[in-house]
Amino acid sequence: MKTEPLTWAQAHTNIALVKYWGKANLELIIPQNSSLSLTLDHFYTQTGVQFDEYLSADQFWLDDQSIPVSSKVKRCLDVVRELAGINQFAKVVSYNHVPNSAGLASSASAFAALATAASRAAGLHLDGKQLSRIARRGSGSSTRSIFGGFVEWHGGNSDATSYAEPIQDPVTMDIKMITVILNRSQKSISSSNGMQRSVTTSPYYPIWRDQAANDLINIKQAIYSNEFTNVGEIAETNAMRMHSLTLSADPSFTYFNADSLTVMNVVHHLRQNGIECYFTMDAGPNVKILCQSKNEQRIQDELANHFKPQDIVVCNPGPGVKVIRDPRLK
Amino acid sequence: MKTEPLTWAQAHTNIALVKYWGKANLELIIPQNSSLSLTLDHFYTQTGVQFDEYLSADQFWLDDQSIPVSSKVKRCLDVVRELAGINQFAKVVSYNHVPNSAGLASSASAFAALATAASRAAGLHLDGKQLSRIARRGSGSSTRSIFGGFVEWHGGNSDATSYAEPIQDPVTMDIKMITVILNRSQKSISSSNGMQRSVTTSPYYPIWRDQAANDLINIKQAIYSNEFTNVGEIAETNAMRMHSLTLSADPSFTYFNADSLTVMNVVHHLRQNGIECYFTMDAGPNVKILCQSKNEQRIQDELANHFKPQDIVVCNPGPGVKVIRDPRLK
Repeated sequence: MKTEPLTWAQAHTNIALVKYWGKANLELIIPQNSSLSLTLDHFYTQTGVQFDEYLSADQFWLDDQSIPVSSKVKRCLDVVRELAGINQFAKVVSYNHVPNSAGLASSASAFAALATAASRAAGLHLDGKQLSRIARRGSGSSTRSIFGGFVEWHGGNSDATSYAEPIQDPVTMDIKMITVILNRSQKSISSSNGMQRSVTTSPYYPIWRDQAANDLINIKQAIYSNEFTNVGEIAETNAMRMHSLTLSADPSFTYFNADSLTVMNVVHHLRQNGIECYFTMDAGPNVKILCQSKNEQRIQDELANHFKPQDIVVCNPGPGVKVIRDPRLK
Repeated sequence: MKTEPLTWAQAHTNIALVKYWGKANLELIIPQNSSLSLTLDHFYTQTGVQFDEYLSADQFWLDDQSIPVSSKVKRCLDVVRELAGINQFAKVVSYNHVPNSAGLASSASAFAALATAASRAAGLHLDGKQLSRIARRGSGSSTRSIFGGFVEWHGGNSDATSYAEPIQDPVTMDIKMITVILNRSQKSISSSNGMQRSVTTSPYYPIWRDQAANDLINIKQAIYSNEFTNVGEIAETNAMRMHSLTLSADPSFTYFNADSLTVMNVVHHLRQNGIECYFTMDAGPNVKILCQSKNEQRIQDELANHFKPQDIVVCNPGPGVKVIRDPRLK
């Protein structure tokens, strides 16, 4: 019995400039607030999927290792199976070119690639909006990795109304994101648990929602008007207001480590010296620096005083998800 | 012409368990919220004051160095002069047994001692409430250093209604504060500037006021009921909610440094291992750990893995301000 080959897709990570922090619906992953991100060219996931009537369970290989199928992967596959009206288990093979679980959004590219590969393998031909809704069921931030460039995730209030939309792709703004990879180890509190604790225990949480809504309006205007300074300032304050929600939770927690503070101090120092740059940070210690081409080298040089060159990665705006040929075939 | 000798007073630092963060009146130093502190036995200031008709300006010696008279010192002296109806300049001699300006409240003990010595030197015999109102004009937190033990600063809304009151002195609760002195250098943003930026730019600030009011009610109940656990939990969450106001300001800032994070991680690690302790932190990188006698040694041992023994200082509840004899006389 010959089976069909795997259907492959590739998706890139995205980093939010207006953060997603908090779920309104835990099952459907409907967020408390809309968010906006930049998809990056450097970090990506390639995933192949095959539905097979002879399989007795879903299977998952990550970087050539068989690992248990997580409830999130199963949920994504279930959504695809239901849409396609098929009743077969799937083999999923994935290669992750992103440091895992340290605030570099490895799950964003992973579920965007999975949603795309799985739906195509099931015979579905969905548009980006539909794919983003499937990816969302695996990981909220992956909703945005379906598209390239600047992407908005409309928070919505239902499965149908919570989806991503490209805001500018290809990106015309001169913008780069320098990622400093500080910690390849797993984070101590997952983003899911961290945001839920913020929602339920931070007294500041209700204000965050209003603030994020304002930030979203303002950053879109700044993108349309090609105002890098406004984009950077909004992104930095928005990120720190998200991290305020971790400190103000009960019990309090933080994703900062000593190296995170070092990168922030580098950014402050550079700005004081006329080098324009801004930082953002997610649910892990890695810090990402927004800058323009003219300052890229100067910022790298300054970072090299504190970090290894291989941990300093310059990213450009990246593309949306696409179907690819099997990357294992040379 | 023989002048009167200096009149001396000694006051101890205090560390707030429900923080003061934000002024409602910059001139009178009326706070946005009431606060509660523990006066400590270890760090203190001794100050001598002499009003002298032959002086042509106020003079200030700190640790045997002549330094310019700050506007805050002048304001305190002016308040005393007005109350006493005298029109003479003052000589002020002060010895500070507190690391300066790194979140250890050196100004708290300094202005409490100054208010007491100056008013007595001017022939006034004021009660603690009156002294606390004078100290307040120099530095908000010094309002509380007039009294020993647990002290509340009633925020009030005028000079007359903004004063300190002892809540429990002597302290009957088994409570100690282990201070880790992380940075003897000056802080980069003063508490005055930091709190003002929080008040004017953090969207979370209005919620902070309500939260602090609740925390104050609850911590007083915990003190009266001798519930150390509640005192510690309220103090830790309150402190981190104050620090959220620095991160959420525009531009954002933080008093955390790498060593601050290390101390917080030590506390988390100890708690996970059944050693009860809590941290608090002010407008500087130093972290203070609340604990009970039974765990004091264990916590010191753990800290000694990361810090020098001389930077780990165990404090007990300390006394209120008192008039003393000239400390230079042996």
